[in-house]
Amino acid sequence: MPIEDYFTEVTHRDWETESVEGTVNIAIIGVGGFARNRAIPAISKSEYGRTTVLVTSSPETLAETEAAADVDHCIDYDAFLQGECRDAYDAVYISTPNALHGTYAAAAASMGAHVICEKPLETTPDRAREIIDACAAADVTLMTAYRLQLEPIVRRTRTLLNEGVLGEIVAVHGSFSNPLLEEADPDTWRLDPDLAGGGVLVDLGIYPINTIRFLLECEPTGVYAHTRTESGDSPFGDVDRDVSLHLRLPGGGSALCTASYVGHAGSQLRLVGTDGSVTISSPFGGVVPHDILLETGDLSMEYTGEPIDEVREEFDYFCYCILTGTTPEPDGEDGVADLEIIEAAYESARDVCVVPLGED
Amino acid sequence: MPIEDYFTEVTHRDWETESVEGTVNIAIIGVGGFARNRAIPAISKSEYGRTTVLVTSSPETLAETEAAADVDHCIDYDAFLQGECRDAYDAVYISTPNALHGTYAAAAASMGAHVICEKPLETTPDRAREIIDACAAADVTLMTAYRLQLEPIVRRTRTLLNEGVLGEIVAVHGSFSNPLLEEADPDTWRLDPDLAGGGVLVDLGIYPINTIRFLLECEPTGVYAHTRTESGDSPFGDVDRDVSLHLRLPGGGSALCTASYVGHAGSQLRLVGTDGSVTISSPFGGVVPHDILLETGDLSMEYTGEPIDEVREEFDYFCYCILTGTTPEPDGEDGVADLEIIEAAYESARDVCVVPLGED
Repeated sequence: MPIEDYFTEVTHRDWETESVEGTVNIAIIGVGGFARNRAIPAISKSEYGRTTVLVTSSPETLAETEAAADVDHCIDYDAFLQGECRDAYDAVYISTPNALHGTYAAAAASMGAHVICEKPLETTPDRAREIIDACAAADVTLMTAYRLQLEPIVRRTRTLLNEGVLGEIVAVHGSFSNPLLEEADPDTWRLDPDLAGGGVLVDLGIYPINTIRFLLECEPTGVYAHTRTESGDSPFGDVDRDVSLHLRLPGGGSALCTASYVGHAGSQLRLVGTDGSVTISSPFGGVVPHDILLETGDLSMEYTGEPIDEVREEFDYFCYCILTGTTPEPDGEDGVADLEIIEAAYESARDVCVVPLGED
Repeated sequence: MPIEDYFTEVTHRDWETESVEGTVNIAIIGVGGFARNRAIPAISKSEYGRTTVLVTSSPETLAETEAAADVDHCIDYDAFLQGECRDAYDAVYISTPNALHGTYAAAAASMGAHVICEKPLETTPDRAREIIDACAAADVTLMTAYRLQLEPIVRRTRTLLNEGVLGEIVAVHGSFSNPLLEEADPDTWRLDPDLAGGGVLVDLGIYPINTIRFLLECEPTGVYAHTRTESGDSPFGDVDRDVSLHLRLPGGGSALCTASYVGHAGSQLRLVGTDGSVTISSPFGGVVPHDILLETGDLSMEYTGEPIDEVREEFDYFCYCILTGTTPEPDGEDGVADLEIIEAAYESARDVCVVPLGED
């Protein structure tokens, strides 16, 4: 089809193939900055979701804040684990520190609640598999919260790739920098390797890794990684502050990614194929516009439309999957796949070697 | 100084610090596409250079073409080696296949002619060092033809970096694709490993490698490379068609580069520092505009001025160096440094390992 047609109806929900009715009531477990600033507002604007319960360590304090304005219940973690307010929610959104995902996912599943869990799914592939097993045993929906997979520009790019507009992909570059300490305290759990499972690779590097896997619909066959840590009293002393990754793709292409906790805030994704290239500006940064530049033949086309809140898209997709009995594409296995790459990348960085991935 | 000041007088020649008079007469050795389409027109517009001699395998045929319109002599390679027309030139520009650079550079030096030699300087570091030795023994100027080092946008970027506008550099991405067979026959010497010294890494990958070394003024401490070849009867059967490189930088940063002989034509260079980022569009592609996007703090500034012919800048710089007795910054050692990285990269790709560089 004509190239410009990929940019008409950019924001349409290609996943919404049947009409559904109903609302999914959601308990948010762990009410940090992202939950307050992005998830709660997004769910309030969503078509199929409603936040009914907040689970936090200080429910009384939280109940008096803006975040709880439209929410029925604020409870603490123990109360949640004991089944309090169980009738008030159908599903949980887990945004606790990573190492607690498994505990709350398993508890929610055992109570029959569907689960959407922040990325990384857990701190290791084995712990993430326990989440998959718990949700499978309880026959509840499990989605890993890869919001980029619901971002319309990213989805249109996948269509372009699927239909061969770029030809064979020869090189991918992805970068994501977000200065952590401009927003977080130095004692944030994100810098605690036990709670986070690692540093910037786990927190930011996972964005280009997952998005590239999603776009190309393939699994890397090997990884070489280099991490940079700081020593001594630095807040980054225990984890990687910067990471760079070389991922081998099946067929011989390469995907090169960087992520940084200190680099100037910004991100970019660039895919070069034999018949064209796509450059997405600021794909990972959140609320900034996600412009896309497509070059093919002698044509150069840039789309700079209104940004879409991909967090709202993500929650509507999750709820739609529950209401229609569809398995989310970013499922538990998707979460495990990234954790396997991350685990191999840390091994590569430690041993200064290339680590094969998959069954190769 | 204010950020916008880096973009005033973008095109001024910061290297031209004294006024000089005189003209350097140049013999062009090897008159292929780049010499015809870029070098000869650039020298004809230059301030300090003049093409007086063309050295080619078919001088009679060439003499009747547009390329020879303003040139005094067309001679063949043997005639050059025998010193014919020696009085007609002060310097030589070597644009033969790479494996012949040494022969003609040594011959020119032994006759007292200054040398500007296309990159890569030769096919191996050892052969390149022979060029350095020959030029040193003859006390003639030697410049490796890294035109990007004379490109104003690249030079302004180096000033930004030098003055710390971007802070500490944490990640660099460089990519360059140019579909070789859209311009060249499948039997081009560029795909003959004996004449070229390798494939796309040598021909295109050298651009981001050298430009990054130039901009950051440092030498990588290790390289990991992945090359992709085609088998069988493919024109790319003997050399790397695509390459991806992970370069470790001193201090812990990383530079990730890709180059392709089949990817859609385009290039980009992106540097991310703690205080800002710079993205240069199409830095390596030749005659296309070299736009630059600078982001620092809450500021985003884009320069899209008229492109400058960096080939003319390159030849004027070379002649200026001769006329003023200045050693060119892209000297022979600069050429050897890239060849050492390239040699290590091929070793890395062959052995699937990280190869240390320098004295680390």
